[in-house]
Amino acid sequence: MSFEPPQTLSTAQCWDLLAAHEFGRLAFPLVGDVQITPLNYAVDGDRLLFRTAEGNKLLGVVMHARVALEIDELTQESAWSVVVRGSARVLEGAEADRAEQVPLRPWVGDDKHHVIEIAPDEVSGRRFHLHKPWEHMRATD
Amino acid sequence: MSFEPPQTLSTAQCWDLLAAHEFGRLAFPLVGDVQITPLNYAVDGDRLLFRTAEGNKLLGVVMHARVALEIDELTQESAWSVVVRGSARVLEGAEADRAEQVPLRPWVGDDKHHVIEIAPDEVSGRRFHLHKPWEHMRATD
Repeated sequence: MSFEPPQTLSTAQCWDLLAAHEFGRLAFPLVGDVQITPLNYAVDGDRLLFRTAEGNKLLGVVMHARVALEIDELTQESAWSVVVRGSARVLEGAEADRAEQVPLRPWVGDDKHHVIEIAPDEVSGRRFHLHKPWEHMRATD
Repeated sequence: MSFEPPQTLSTAQCWDLLAAHEFGRLAFPLVGDVQITPLNYAVDGDRLLFRTAEGNKLLGVVMHARVALEIDELTQESAWSVVVRGSARVLEGAEADRAEQVPLRPWVGDDKHHVIEIAPDEVSGRRFHLHKPWEHMRATD
């Protein structure tokens, strides 16, 4: 069996994928622990925006400005992922109105009044072919 | 428009979803930063196993035993996610052979000799209905 090395995506390819999607996962440190949570986001120029309510996510972002956001797609034979690492801050006042100009609304009915901006300092992506030699070990779904 | 609150999944439901899937994302602190990376995993009793090569992932796990693993599924109208938080350690010697007894193989051709075990101390999951009032703002794909 031959394996192919993962393909590194260009920064432009990563941004194209970020702009074409809206569902990702945010990871952030939280009082000596690490948390990860799904969210929807939107691209606003060279920044990412998302909304949040008071609580876990917002608290983590305010206390620890470093975050990572990941998106991916998995098919039977290949997968790609894009990871954005950067700093996050809460947009205040008129700045928060930027969220009204992008396709960003809370998907669920929580009271998500706060708009968070991620300023990326590292955007990376990979695409790989998948091999599943253990497929026979899995029960048929 | 009426919103429904997210539904909390039971621990048993979370484990059923973990066992039925194999692709997730691992978040971990890494030298003052946070990293997130996709990986494939397998359930082994009440633990999770994954493989890794020397490098980013393994280094992060060894240096900082706290990790979080997330799986999710998104459809047009609903989504669920399960998050496992716990501690990670490298399995050495014969212990690493446990990875041979579960459907866990590297999906890509890297040299992933190391087996990492996650011992969960918190497993949580949510399911929610999605509302996308901004759908009209998105270009048709």
